[in-house]
Amino acid sequence: MKRLTLSMQGKLNYAISPFNKPTLRIKPGETVVVETEDAFSGQIRSKGDRRDRKAMPFVNPQTGPIYVEGAEKGDTLSVDVKDIKPAIGQGATKIPTSWYWYLGDLGENPALSRFLELKFPHGTRICPIEENRVYFSDSIVLPYEPMIGTIGTAPEIEAISSYLLGSHGGNMDLPDVCIGNKLFLPVRVDGALLHLGDVHAVQGEGEICGTAIEMPADVTLTIDLIKGKAISWPRIESQEHLMAVAVSGTGRTLEEAIRIAFMELILWLEEDYGIDRWDAYQLCTQVGKVRLGNLWTVAAAFPKKYLSGTSLKP
Amino acid sequence: MKRLTLSMQGKLNYAISPFNKPTLRIKPGETVVVETEDAFSGQIRSKGDRRDRKAMPFVNPQTGPIYVEGAEKGDTLSVDVKDIKPAIGQGATKIPTSWYWYLGDLGENPALSRFLELKFPHGTRICPIEENRVYFSDSIVLPYEPMIGTIGTAPEIEAISSYLLGSHGGNMDLPDVCIGNKLFLPVRVDGALLHLGDVHAVQGEGEICGTAIEMPADVTLTIDLIKGKAISWPRIESQEHLMAVAVSGTGRTLEEAIRIAFMELILWLEEDYGIDRWDAYQLCTQVGKVRLGNLWTVAAAFPKKYLSGTSLKP
Amino acid sequence: MKRLTLSMQGKLNYAISPFNKPTLRIKPGETVVVETEDAFSGQIRSKGDRRDRKAMPFVNPQTGPIYVEGAEKGDTLSVDVKDIKPAIGQGATKIPTSWYWYLGDLGENPALSRFLELKFPHGTRICPIEENRVYFSDSIVLPYEPMIGTIGTAPEIEAISSYLLGSHGGNMDLPDVCIGNKLFLPVRVDGALLHLGDVHAVQGEGEICGTAIEMPADVTLTIDLIKGKAISWPRIESQEHLMAVAVSGTGRTLEEAIRIAFMELILWLEEDYGIDRWDAYQLCTQVGKVRLGNLWTVAAAFPKKYLSGTSLKP
Amino acid sequence: MKRLTLSMQGKLNYAISPFNKPTLRIKPGETVVVETEDAFSGQIRSKGDRRDRKAMPFVNPQTGPIYVEGAEKGDTLSVDVKDIKPAIGQGATKIPTSWYWYLGDLGENPALSRFLELKFPHGTRICPIEENRVYFSDSIVLPYEPMIGTIGTAPEIEAISSYLLGSHGGNMDLPDVCIGNKLFLPVRVDGALLHLGDVHAVQGEGEICGTAIEMPADVTLTIDLIKGKAISWPRIESQEHLMAVAVSGTGRTLEEAIRIAFMELILWLEEDYGIDRWDAYQLCTQVGKVRLGNLWTVAAAFPKKYLSGTSLKP
Repeated sequence: MKRLTLSMQGKLNYAISPFNKPTLRIKPGETVVVETEDAFSGQIRSKGDRRDRKAMPFVNPQTGPIYVEGAEKGDTLSVDVKDIKPAIGQGATKIPTSWYWYLGDLGENPALSRFLELKFPHGTRICPIEENRVYFSDSIVLPYEPMIGTIGTAPEIEAISSYLLGSHGGNMDLPDVCIGNKLFLPVRVDGALLHLGDVHAVQGEGEICGTAIEMPADVTLTIDLIKGKAISWPRIESQEHLMAVAVSGTGRTLEEAIRIAFMELILWLEEDYGIDRWDAYQLCTQVGKVRLGNLWTVAAAFPKKYLSGTSLKP
Repeated sequence: MKRLTLSMQGKLNYAISPFNKPTLRIKPGETVVVETEDAFSGQIRSKGDRRDRKAMPFVNPQTGPIYVEGAEKGDTLSVDVKDIKPAIGQGATKIPTSWYWYLGDLGENPALSRFLELKFPHGTRICPIEENRVYFSDSIVLPYEPMIGTIGTAPEIEAISSYLLGSHGGNMDLPDVCIGNKLFLPVRVDGALLHLGDVHAVQGEGEICGTAIEMPADVTLTIDLIKGKAISWPRIESQEHLMAVAVSGTGRTLEEAIRIAFMELILWLEEDYGIDRWDAYQLCTQVGKVRLGNLWTVAAAFPKKYLSGTSLKP
Repeated sequence: MKRLTLSMQGKLNYAISPFNKPTLRIKPGETVVVETEDAFSGQIRSKGDRRDRKAMPFVNPQTGPIYVEGAEKGDTLSVDVKDIKPAIGQGATKIPTSWYWYLGDLGENPALSRFLELKFPHGTRICPIEENRVYFSDSIVLPYEPMIGTIGTAPEIEAISSYLLGSHGGNMDLPDVCIGNKLFLPVRVDGALLHLGDVHAVQGEGEICGTAIEMPADVTLTIDLIKGKAISWPRIESQEHLMAVAVSGTGRTLEEAIRIAFMELILWLEEDYGIDRWDAYQLCTQVGKVRLGNLWTVAAAFPKKYLSGTSLKP
Repeated sequence: MKRLTLSMQGKLNYAISPFNKPTLRIKPGETVVVETEDAFSGQIRSKGDRRDRKAMPFVNPQTGPIYVEGAEKGDTLSVDVKDIKPAIGQGATKIPTSWYWYLGDLGENPALSRFLELKFPHGTRICPIEENRVYFSDSIVLPYEPMIGTIGTAPEIEAISSYLLGSHGGNMDLPDVCIGNKLFLPVRVDGALLHLGDVHAVQGEGEICGTAIEMPADVTLTIDLIKGKAISWPRIESQEHLMAVAVSGTGRTLEEAIRIAFMELILWLEEDYGIDRWDAYQLCTQVGKVRLGNLWTVAAAFPKKYLSGTSLKP
């Protein structure tokens, strides 16, 4: 089994980009272990630690890209998450001082925080991780439910910051990118160029203070290729659900992202499972679920148990 | 046990309003059965039926208001949902012809549909309901998971259409307003003036085609009063979760509603359970859940199992 | 000329509503002078004054409703603004203490302000108004450019708070509702029931601190009726422009409101001026203007000088 | 005077990026003529022309980048627009077939158009440009009011598609980037790396059909450097106004962008003109203007005539 270590990787990447040089080449179907740094670039390891002032946009460092042989624009990459192990037995969380997460100004220049000169409690918290438990405090123990926060394939001509997100994936923070699930990503350049990082030991929907239990990790993935099948947005398949992902962005509210995710899900049901789109539309209205990643990411989910029916005609 | 029948009710209401005359008076703690009409005002009962052209804004007819003795502005009403029974053994769903649900123009005047002269398949579907099953089609059977789509207390000076929603409740379409859960609503006028209707036999998150399995129903509620305790937005308590509800609206995106719901949840945890707000903020980031009603309603949920810890200090 | 004085009016209204009893009846075509109170209900008259704590939702008190004889659902009301005079020779502005205007939480319960316990400078400022000048400070003199901040006809079944806005008009804060311009409003109930108040001596686009130079005023209007012509949203005609108004709201961002305003404008150009909608769409792209009222209101404007062309076919 | 011709340029760029190799080097203060291609990459030159199917993301080709000697991260670039001449005596406009502009799904994958299989009239229109006139049709003549649609400096680590926009500038489509005005852009990499293209012969606010009168052009700019002065977002100075620009994006609605633009404007008034931010906030409320570029770009404007006052204290 191949391993992409942080030492092989050398410099980590802060953009998901076709301009990054591959640090590993694999064949479709191979299983690899990828070492990832945490979202703080490893700067928060004990209680007094602070990020340096030049933090933004240097968050969510990415290992990779991994070049998948034979992958070309128009294909789909499948990423089977086999295992996620904490690298140093702990994770960390904090409340951002600029609070851009809450104040609607995702980026490097949070105007309102400057305008009001808001100051927030730092609140750095170091959480030991042992035997599938995350020690949040003396009295609160959380389950270890690890997930990959940022993962994506290179866009065709853009280099997208690893704190942003789009149809290529990126900083989705979806708890469903977890052990046992399979993630599908669009291939837009030769080799697909898979990047990943920003692993969380556990994270709630919304990730509302902006940082989950962030940890460096060893991630085991089986990466395969679906030739000649193009998807517009990421998809996920779990034991129980088909999930179509969409994210908010310029001209696209979260509400609109939910609509897009459901449209993608419905077109998937039509194309791969033969359910007419208008029937699927009515059916998803009754049994659809919505999963939220961070405040900009949604997955529309369809329970696979309803796929066994043969005809939907009323 | 008191019963508010459709015949006692007479005219149903299409706004949740302090101007509606109470059709039932109860004492705090009483259990009542309320008969509700379906969201289509009963116009869709067999496959060929269509709503008349003057449908909007006459959707989601409301039974009530129920006057709760002793309720005053600044109190909180608790509504324990004991049972929901289908009144006629079937429900109906359809795709709206104007498709305002999808096209961002909630209201009576969907500009884009007029501009493009969009026509959609009618897709009326009648679904028999029997023994906890909803027959969606010959081959697809859905579970009977009934919920109240529209429920709210009267605002202080506004009459709000029953297809809209706000801090008074209204057309939230939250699957968690279901049997076994307790809904809390702000009291803003004498008697609270509880309205309800728009019951669904089953509904997915997002309710994306705009109509769930709509049915007339017999709803059994235990209605009680918490004196001198004011809440800003609706809340729900289930066996497993505390949930704070918020909705999008003027100047308040869905994303912003999620933030508000979490802030309400955190302030609830601080006020009633003694968890400091900044600790609660970090904790909700890791274990919070988000439930979506229709595309404009969210509930931020906290698992009650974490309430047993005594101190959150790291 | 009829006059609707504050003393004839008696109690002012805080909702635009079919439930308010008319305080004046007129025939179509009549000119009336209407006395209006300021947005602060007259509570801010000298520098130390503060609004009482129960301010919300009691802002923007409305004079009226004025009942226009013969007006019925499906007609359009035209309101020609003839004059606006300051009633007491001064106006006032302030920065809201809860800052809901900035923090995305328009309404009575600004969660973020509570969460962060934000405190803002009060900044009450009294501005004398004399001879078409508004004295903002010792050194800054602003032009007197008066406008009606809140004006609307009653909705069919709703009572809408006078701090909110919708297709009925309401708290639009559009500087174009000014002397010399004609406002068109949809009629949805018998008598149209025109409400107005919240006059500003001068106001910029966006009205970003939430209060313009607020003043009580004497407003002279000629009110007429267009029978059998229905409009979906307010419209304005000035010497130079046709303007279609739309506002943001549930499921309708400001961006979406701009689209709707342009669609309404284009359909107006097609219906009344014979310009094919696709030609009008391309033409508005090149010469359209956008006017902003408060942060939730837009007008899409078409310069009337281009109406003289006879054919648009390329 | 230096000239950057299309032939010197060779390959045009479809991303604004630190990875693009400079095609011209200048000293601060130099005046240059830059040849730009139109937004359609020159594919629409006569009435029957269509863009090829692989258009997206290859729109808005950029000339440059121009490397400005001595420019470093933390400086500001000033770009004085001296002249804009049509290169071929005509421009073109069309209605996009996928209509992503209207349907909220800016990007390569407009889900709703696929879902509904919407088809729109092509509506390509070629407009001759002569003697400061743009011939829209036989009967409609528009003024020649040229502007630069897309212009920006390279981000630090991202390559941003030239159909997108951000704090680096990009596809802002602001009519105020025109002859006589000065644009300020943040410098984030050595040499600033200025890109431009997408010139319009005339464009309305909102640019609602998505294409203005697009033309190849010769653009004359004087480019200078302000050392050691950092700005967060683009700014513009005209004869009459100071303007601060912001754009919508992930987690930032258009309404939020307006707030940010005003906050930037207010902080500018405080920093450079000595007006206390709370006074400036109240003043901008009364005299601020808002300019809209495309549906995602706003400029908050302050009339310079009010800068002559010496003290704002009430």
